[in-house]
Amino acid sequence: MCFEISEENIGGYMIVTEKFFSGIGKRLRASEVRELLKWIKKGGIISFGGGMPDPKTFPVEEMKEIFSYIFSERKLGEEALQYGTTEGYNPLRETILEMLKKDGFKAIEDLDNIVITTGSQQALDLIAKVFIDPGDTIIVEAPTYLAALNAFAYFEPNFEVVPLDKEEMKVDLLEEKLGKLRKEGKNVKFIYTVPTAQNPAGTTMPNDRRRKLVDLAYEYDTIIIEDNPYGYLIFDDRVKFNHLGAFDDEGRVIYMSSFSKILSPGFRLGFIAGHKEFIRKLVLAKQAADLCTPSVTQMAANEFLRRGYLEKHVEKIKNIYKGKKEAMINALKTYMPEGTDWTNPVGGMFIWVTVEGVDTTEMVKTALERGVAYVHGRAFYPENARELGKNAMRLNFSYPTIEQINEGIKRLAEVVKEYKKK
Amino acid sequence: MCFEISEENIGGYMIVTEKFFSGIGKRLRASEVRELLKWIKKGGIISFGGGMPDPKTFPVEEMKEIFSYIFSERKLGEEALQYGTTEGYNPLRETILEMLKKDGFKAIEDLDNIVITTGSQQALDLIAKVFIDPGDTIIVEAPTYLAALNAFAYFEPNFEVVPLDKEEMKVDLLEEKLGKLRKEGKNVKFIYTVPTAQNPAGTTMPNDRRRKLVDLAYEYDTIIIEDNPYGYLIFDDRVKFNHLGAFDDEGRVIYMSSFSKILSPGFRLGFIAGHKEFIRKLVLAKQAADLCTPSVTQMAANEFLRRGYLEKHVEKIKNIYKGKKEAMINALKTYMPEGTDWTNPVGGMFIWVTVEGVDTTEMVKTALERGVAYVHGRAFYPENARELGKNAMRLNFSYPTIEQINEGIKRLAEVVKEYKKK
Repeated sequence: MCFEISEENIGGYMIVTEKFFSGIGKRLRASEVRELLKWIKKGGIISFGGGMPDPKTFPVEEMKEIFSYIFSERKLGEEALQYGTTEGYNPLRETILEMLKKDGFKAIEDLDNIVITTGSQQALDLIAKVFIDPGDTIIVEAPTYLAALNAFAYFEPNFEVVPLDKEEMKVDLLEEKLGKLRKEGKNVKFIYTVPTAQNPAGTTMPNDRRRKLVDLAYEYDTIIIEDNPYGYLIFDDRVKFNHLGAFDDEGRVIYMSSFSKILSPGFRLGFIAGHKEFIRKLVLAKQAADLCTPSVTQMAANEFLRRGYLEKHVEKIKNIYKGKKEAMINALKTYMPEGTDWTNPVGGMFIWVTVEGVDTTEMVKTALERGVAYVHGRAFYPENARELGKNAMRLNFSYPTIEQINEGIKRLAEVVKEYKKK
Repeated sequence: MCFEISEENIGGYMIVTEKFFSGIGKRLRASEVRELLKWIKKGGIISFGGGMPDPKTFPVEEMKEIFSYIFSERKLGEEALQYGTTEGYNPLRETILEMLKKDGFKAIEDLDNIVITTGSQQALDLIAKVFIDPGDTIIVEAPTYLAALNAFAYFEPNFEVVPLDKEEMKVDLLEEKLGKLRKEGKNVKFIYTVPTAQNPAGTTMPNDRRRKLVDLAYEYDTIIIEDNPYGYLIFDDRVKFNHLGAFDDEGRVIYMSSFSKILSPGFRLGFIAGHKEFIRKLVLAKQAADLCTPSVTQMAANEFLRRGYLEKHVEKIKNIYKGKKEAMINALKTYMPEGTDWTNPVGGMFIWVTVEGVDTTEMVKTALERGVAYVHGRAFYPENARELGKNAMRLNFSYPTIEQINEGIKRLAEVVKEYKKK
């Protein structure tokens, strides 16, 4: 094995690293989207691939004012630089508590129902750690949020999927699934859903399905994780719905949301609200994960809300995203061939496009060569259900400009037409 | 079981939460220190219990200037509010790389050797996730950093301990331990050490032990986690030592440090430097844990370093802590009875006190009643070695004022004297 040894020597490293990794460590692999982003960095590519807010919407001026305020008072400044509590900055927790009460959450009573997290990604990681043992059954939507799949997968659950239609999760199929699993003697640890302006599908669940979903959690003695990063970005005012928590007296809904899409993803501020027993464990898990979320960003976010800036700011974002979404829908109508279908989201950042007979994973490379990026559908399904996404792709409309949306969809439609002919 | 049911009803919760938790979730328990902190909040207590920097040292003025700079330029402001990369803010990684090269780290070559973490607590959590499978053997110092024990314990390793003396880890005993484990056919996943101004013991390892420690990692084909939060706070200028990485060509030392003690714990900024293969996996684990560390705090920290503020600032902290440490040592000499022993740290934030014949866990409650708090020694040992800490306590000198140090040690000595008589 001379060759192998000399190759090791080239890097100056004799250590064989592989043997040190745990099972989780060995399973960690770069995600497909991560690889995609490397391509995009090379330039010249219009990207519908990411999930970033439009930085033009960021409240830079307001933040200058707020940080100046925080560091002008010695006492506030010291607080901003000191350790915070694991549960989060109390004034921010109180602001969130008020929001949730106004939104009709029935089982949320006081601060003990709320923990601030370092972005909603941490919320997913803590939930995975606290709830999932290897082999546990959890139910996710198909398709579902990619980073949630990743966070859950490290703890090796058995993924069961329930498909979506244009009104979000097919709750009748969920009922069938729950019945089947009960017959098989399988408990469901939780049902994970993004019921509002879903990522990746852009779908929103109407209230009758929401009520039914909560009823099913009661009937089958399970809990629901309601992930809601986009619910404050609904740009169609006619759409009315309640959070799942508004149908839940017992605390079977664990609600999580984030300031990433309405204020700043760079602040990494999310939160979880739910039953006190669940929150207590999540706080303990967070203590081991990062002790506490930075104080300074929590203080700045709370100040932003306290000064009444959020409402005006969200209106601005909604207007911009609404225009971009309409531009993308119009471009899809103009350029896409027959046999192409898409969702028409009432909010959020994504459109889900399905192209009959085209393998969108195979198509990625050609699209990149023609200067347009998307995420192929398979990425949004657990391993055992990936084929359900073979004809789909997720398009982000929040980040590109309207000109890029037009040009990008035109490029993409050309590639789609070629692939349909194959 | 009528009573139990009605008790459940009082809270309005019918759900039995316990059944939903994973093995990790079930093992999560509030730490003893956490309970202690609740007591202290009640007021009137001089606390040597925590591990917080003196907020009077925080650079509030400088931060006002820096945040104002960041948010005065639209482009920088947008960057501060947008998602960053999982690896961390590149200019900060470059600053760290330079620092490490200057410090003689032999196996650290470029940015791929470095990942920024959300505090060093996250570094510990990621290391636990990536390296530890249940039943794996890891070696820790006895005593060792409490929060590291917590982070590691969730992944259920077999803890082996090596005791300290006043020159830090007894590396000769480590060699014996490694030999014994090899005979038993047990691989050691890693050795975790805080070799400089250790938490909790306040000890610092001389260079001959450091060299020997690295040699042993090579001989026994294992790796070392060097945790160094206090190494930049050495207030005795005569003390010279190298980082373990200065003796390591292959990348067997994974180095972690933090800006918590030299800049701001509220920023939650730490980093890991090591072999690229290890860093690559840690980055992937971080992606699932919180996607990225906040951009704005990374930018502010880097600006603080770039403007040359750190050096002056660290000098100021060192002077203050040196004064406080000397005050505590003097108070110990003045008030403590015979049969009490303590370390005399050259840096950091902690003194380790041992009282012959006194159970310091039992003594905690009386001390609190007399208005003084400390952390009992047992807390700093893994479950299987707790009795080694029965006569010890950790005293923090960075947070209390000099007056509080004097009065607090006086109070504590009174309690110690009583307990010695028992």
